[in-house]
Amino acid sequence: MANQQIILSQRPAGIPQPEHFRQIETAEPALPTGGLLIKNHFLSIDPAMRGWICDLNNYLPPVAIDGVMRSLAAGQVIASDCSQYQVGDYVTGWFGWQQIAAISPDQVIRKVAPEEGPLSASLGVLGLNGITAYLALHEIGRPKAGETVLVSTAAGAVGSVVGQLAKLAGCQVIGLTSSEDKIASCTKLYGYDLALNYRTADNLEQLIREHCPQKIDVFFDNTAGAIADSVFANMNVRGRIIQCGTASISQWDPLPTGPRHERFILTQRLLHQGFVVFDYLEQWPQVIAELSTLIHQGQLNYQEDVREGLSAAPQALADLYTGNNSGKTLIRL
Amino acid sequence: MANQQIILSQRPAGIPQPEHFRQIETAEPALPTGGLLIKNHFLSIDPAMRGWICDLNNYLPPVAIDGVMRSLAAGQVIASDCSQYQVGDYVTGWFGWQQIAAISPDQVIRKVAPEEGPLSASLGVLGLNGITAYLALHEIGRPKAGETVLVSTAAGAVGSVVGQLAKLAGCQVIGLTSSEDKIASCTKLYGYDLALNYRTADNLEQLIREHCPQKIDVFFDNTAGAIADSVFANMNVRGRIIQCGTASISQWDPLPTGPRHERFILTQRLLHQGFVVFDYLEQWPQVIAELSTLIHQGQLNYQEDVREGLSAAPQALADLYTGNNSGKTLIRL
Repeated sequence: MANQQIILSQRPAGIPQPEHFRQIETAEPALPTGGLLIKNHFLSIDPAMRGWICDLNNYLPPVAIDGVMRSLAAGQVIASDCSQYQVGDYVTGWFGWQQIAAISPDQVIRKVAPEEGPLSASLGVLGLNGITAYLALHEIGRPKAGETVLVSTAAGAVGSVVGQLAKLAGCQVIGLTSSEDKIASCTKLYGYDLALNYRTADNLEQLIREHCPQKIDVFFDNTAGAIADSVFANMNVRGRIIQCGTASISQWDPLPTGPRHERFILTQRLLHQGFVVFDYLEQWPQVIAELSTLIHQGQLNYQEDVREGLSAAPQALADLYTGNNSGKTLIRL
Repeated sequence: MANQQIILSQRPAGIPQPEHFRQIETAEPALPTGGLLIKNHFLSIDPAMRGWICDLNNYLPPVAIDGVMRSLAAGQVIASDCSQYQVGDYVTGWFGWQQIAAISPDQVIRKVAPEEGPLSASLGVLGLNGITAYLALHEIGRPKAGETVLVSTAAGAVGSVVGQLAKLAGCQVIGLTSSEDKIASCTKLYGYDLALNYRTADNLEQLIREHCPQKIDVFFDNTAGAIADSVFANMNVRGRIIQCGTASISQWDPLPTGPRHERFILTQRLLHQGFVVFDYLEQWPQVIAELSTLIHQGQLNYQEDVREGLSAAPQALADLYTGNNSGKTLIRL
């Protein structure tokens, strides 16, 4: 059986587009000594992918040109030369944009137990997105009951979990999002007290000020740029700003400019900190267990945007940056 | 005896200049009920004064037009209707730019014991500057032995203490400063491993990179602006940036623009936090005791730039923002 793969054919200067990738067919890989063969069932499409394929400084080395696109995926072991994993086990890990992955065991993140729920959830609410939401909110944001938490990309795969966790922590929770449909998801499905459309706002800073006279204590930021600037001006004394993503900035070289934040940082004694989920690997199992419990108790909702077939992956990635998605984007193989 | 005072006559749009102040003569004040009369011996000239006299958001309400300029000062009690303080006691506190201050006891910060050393030190290395250096470095910066600490305004009243404390913590310490004289102070008097002149550097970012291939773990920033931008690009993973001042920015309304820092914050997992010393009042006595011990042990050097007479205060303040000072600026009355 041949193996379909998507490789990175050129580095995008800004937002990745389908033309930066190419689909190729290769022979079915052999089982590596001490390793595994994985048949991918779902691929995860993540905003962080943009950073993984540019050659600017990042927290992981860039994907090589003509290399298989780096991706989290969920699949099943179809051959094993490693006693930890048996044929038939479901696993998530770094399996790439391809049908069959020949990997070493250290590319596996974890086994997924069937009783956890659908396999797809292991890539979203019980995967990178949910774990990111939980740890970034609690490790950096440290929300206290009665505080106000504002989330950008409020209906996204990470933001939707942040909103619900902040609500469970007893906070007032405000979302920023990009469409009326997503506003409805925020308030009806994810329990936000209020969601605002940043696209249609004439003056977002003013709009936030009107709706949050009590100001913002925790800003969970996935966007950076002009959206974030509007929130910086509305932060409360000793507020915390979590930099979890920079989705609104299309290009980092040369560095884009914007209003300086230093005076807000100083006079309001803000804490602004970057979060990368791979720094907290040892906490993942406990967080997955807690999120799983919340789902079983009906306290944590999620949406998936599932697209069909490997060749849908590049367009699905491009759509992430235009807001043309809802919930967690996945590719089903 | 008449009382000379300097009042704020208009709000500067940018850097305060002598024309924004006016010296007036008033009658010697009466002893307030329950209060004190203080004869000022030294006035403290501080970069933070710029923020105290503008009507932008700050951590203290702005000085009123025609009000006596807010200032820390050190002086002697000349009349007391309050059992805590006796005539003859030396004290520091919020006594303003004037010869004699009629105050309530809550404007006193502390009594100064004669054995501490010269009274002037109570406004600098044993006052706001030393306490700021100590607490901001340790509470936010948390330097570990072997790390690299970079200090902007390295020879200033705060920076010079930071440099020495970082060295005592076992760090490699780099200073940024504005003249060859100050570079000599940094390396000969304050124990910096290296000091760089940001004024004469063609490309400060590059210069720092060449001298710090190991990158910066703690950035103690008193400047903001372009100087800080050069350091952001050289921060190590999990670096800490202390925003203690914004001396290089002459005006905050409208907000100046600069390169965005969010990508550095995210990919390097930086922590950027503002520091205001008045948030830590309960720790001041212990910090003063520690700094005083270091001075007595000869482990903490300081320089004072003492100018004579009340009328020298406005120009001394303006000089702070042009780098035309060395060490702690004081006015002797």
